[in-house]
Amino acid sequence: MSKPTPLSGFPELLPAQRVVEQLVVDTLRQTFELHGFAGIETRAVEPLDQLLRKGDTSKEVYVLRRLQAEETGSDAGIGLHFDLTVPFARYVLENAGKLEFPFRRFQIQKVWRGERPQDGRYREFTQADIDVIGRDTLPFHHDVEVTKVMLDALRRLAHPDVVGLPGFRLQVNNRKLIQGFYLGLGLQQVDEVMRLVDKLDKLPAEKVAALLVAEAGATAEQAEACLRLAGIRTEDDSFVEQVRALGISHELLDEGLEELATLMRGAAPLAGGAVRVTADLSIARGLDYYTGTVFETRLDGYESMGSICSGGRYDALASDGRTTYPGVGISLGVSRVLVPLLARGVVTGSRSVPSAVLVALAAEEARPEADAVADALRARAVPCEVAPSAAKFGKQIKHADRRGIPFVWFVQPDGTHQVKDIRSGEQVDADPSTWTPPSEDLRPQVTTTAPSTEEKSS
Amino acid sequence: MSKPTPLSGFPELLPAQRVVEQLVVDTLRQTFELHGFAGIETRAVEPLDQLLRKGDTSKEVYVLRRLQAEETGSDAGIGLHFDLTVPFARYVLENAGKLEFPFRRFQIQKVWRGERPQDGRYREFTQADIDVIGRDTLPFHHDVEVTKVMLDALRRLAHPDVVGLPGFRLQVNNRKLIQGFYLGLGLQQVDEVMRLVDKLDKLPAEKVAALLVAEAGATAEQAEACLRLAGIRTEDDSFVEQVRALGISHELLDEGLEELATLMRGAAPLAGGAVRVTADLSIARGLDYYTGTVFETRLDGYESMGSICSGGRYDALASDGRTTYPGVGISLGVSRVLVPLLARGVVTGSRSVPSAVLVALAAEEARPEADAVADALRARAVPCEVAPSAAKFGKQIKHADRRGIPFVWFVQPDGTHQVKDIRSGEQVDADPSTWTPPSEDLRPQVTTTAPSTEEKSS
Repeated sequence: MSKPTPLSGFPELLPAQRVVEQLVVDTLRQTFELHGFAGIETRAVEPLDQLLRKGDTSKEVYVLRRLQAEETGSDAGIGLHFDLTVPFARYVLENAGKLEFPFRRFQIQKVWRGERPQDGRYREFTQADIDVIGRDTLPFHHDVEVTKVMLDALRRLAHPDVVGLPGFRLQVNNRKLIQGFYLGLGLQQVDEVMRLVDKLDKLPAEKVAALLVAEAGATAEQAEACLRLAGIRTEDDSFVEQVRALGISHELLDEGLEELATLMRGAAPLAGGAVRVTADLSIARGLDYYTGTVFETRLDGYESMGSICSGGRYDALASDGRTTYPGVGISLGVSRVLVPLLARGVVTGSRSVPSAVLVALAAEEARPEADAVADALRARAVPCEVAPSAAKFGKQIKHADRRGIPFVWFVQPDGTHQVKDIRSGEQVDADPSTWTPPSEDLRPQVTTTAPSTEEKSS
Repeated sequence: MSKPTPLSGFPELLPAQRVVEQLVVDTLRQTFELHGFAGIETRAVEPLDQLLRKGDTSKEVYVLRRLQAEETGSDAGIGLHFDLTVPFARYVLENAGKLEFPFRRFQIQKVWRGERPQDGRYREFTQADIDVIGRDTLPFHHDVEVTKVMLDALRRLAHPDVVGLPGFRLQVNNRKLIQGFYLGLGLQQVDEVMRLVDKLDKLPAEKVAALLVAEAGATAEQAEACLRLAGIRTEDDSFVEQVRALGISHELLDEGLEELATLMRGAAPLAGGAVRVTADLSIARGLDYYTGTVFETRLDGYESMGSICSGGRYDALASDGRTTYPGVGISLGVSRVLVPLLARGVVTGSRSVPSAVLVALAAEEARPEADAVADALRARAVPCEVAPSAAKFGKQIKHADRRGIPFVWFVQPDGTHQVKDIRSGEQVDADPSTWTPPSEDLRPQVTTTAPSTEEKSS
């Protein structure tokens, strides 16, 4: 077999890079569990008819076929899931009688999209989703809850003592607010207006205004009002006054303003510093079926990547005809955030192995003694490994250094033990039944480097 | 959407069952990391030509196709991996220049096989693999190492304070030993003999003896000697004497005896109790390309499921033509072990949510106060949730009980706090900034029930 080449769109990580991804996943899971979210996994495949219910994603689905299938039988119509929402909605319907509602779940899994790989888009990537789903009803305070849980997670990811990723800006809006505003303005084609306003991040404002007149039946004044609404951005609930100053009133607008203001006040204690929250009235999540709160998130310094953490409220996340299950959730693109940062070396793991200690070997015959040292360290949860062969000590220290292992353990000819910090060169007497490395050396850490300005632009 | 039905061969777990799977995966990872194994993940797909190199698995491969693919382009020839060995070998070759050897890795991921679902076989399942891979050479002590690491993991899985699965029996043999024995006997068709002797778990001994004569060119005496070798089983290195007593000698036999004896002595400190190790000279792993040590493992009470943890030594796990990478590894079928135990209720999680505490709500207006209690508990790593609505306290206690949450927290009208253990009914004053549940209640535990005799037989 000649040297294989990577498959475009299927990113893989080296061991030291995987340290970072594992720490991110652990941090997310720990946060979600602290907030009472249950971790589930769903199978990788769904029936094609379920995957294709959202017409516009059909191009992205990978269909499965058994290589030697002779019949077009039970697995003729299955494909890989392209998100975690479709499988979750199906899981809820399938197991509704065995679940307790409201049901809080998190799900951290790979998803697949058969699209052409391009900047920041992958064919296989990891997502981390949280959702709260109710039976028949789901009070609005759960919208505030998922916001707070994801903010708590993002704060930990950005904290230099946890992972040290760049900061995040969570942008929140409410579809009731914008739809009520359009209705109050006298516009009828609410969805079309929303779709056009959603183009503001790609087209200049005048162009969008012209489209609103040409395609959504707006007058120039109505188009102007839509753009003024979309221009409102506040870091607290003062957007309410700014909207009120536009002089439009509608029952749905009032409801949306009240919800978004409640959410901003609820999020305030967690906002600020590395993770900010903005009420951004331009956010609409155009093609998705959200019915209230909508979320997007930008990674500081990588805004051009687009939203890396999105979601919102669905009044009917799932329905079996008799019962409707409303939900609110948010999905973090773990690979979307990490793969570019890892590829540019902005973050990496401090070592490529879990071992904090390499136990050196004076001679192959001394292996049982070295194994006993390793076992004593492991009994106190110190990850370690024994040198693969009895090379010169200098070579064994290099062996540790190449892997980033901070400590090398020596059993001296007189039977005493010493441990050397190979970074400082300091070597001290040590007892394998009591010695422990400093807590920051126990597990691999994340090493952060500020990217240069050029590298930052993606 | 009507109620969906499960897909045969794609097992999914309810939240309380997932607690057990997550604990198993965490325990495996923790053990592997203590022994210095680096956790990696490989993409789910491999080029078809790589997947089909082992001819006999071709039926099992799921091929991928983009639903809207117009060209038969770059992804025309990819399929889902059916094990973690093929992807690992490819990963090593692809990244050889960036890895340090010997390279110890663990990998816990899903794999897919498009075969007909049947008892204990799934189309999607989780495997946990450990391997050590060398460049050009890999000393035998790594065979002992992987044995000890997997034994350490199995001991934890079987320990009642960790997971409490049934016990395990690891069966070890060495292909050099059996091949050397056959050569010493004067048999030439060594692979054919091994393939036929491997049928001893399905066919009676006389039938296998007849096949050895009919298909492998053995005399009746040679066939008898092969069966006597395969009948040797010892829990220490005393198999050496028993083999010697058969009066056969060959250089390769000596090498195999020495290796297997070394392995049994090395494993001895970890063997016994819930996890036993047997030198079982009938084990051959017929169709795989092992060249020395071979492993199989039986789960106590579920022996008829076959081996749930298998592996061995390959002299060439990977090769790029210039460099050969020998490896030794072992793969635990996580789903293979857990899905039957979960389906029969032998193990389950003690609760369906991570929350140790439900903070009750006297009135919806008191939600900020309840949130503050929850935040104070989370600040000290106590997972908790706030009641979804201000129902009667009896209803809120039932809400906790249905989820298995052991504690309910009350903010009293006078502003003092109390916490109730809903199992004992005991209710005490508590301060959210200092109160912590007993450590065994902090996370969901595994509840174990002995299966009835009928249930046990699979």
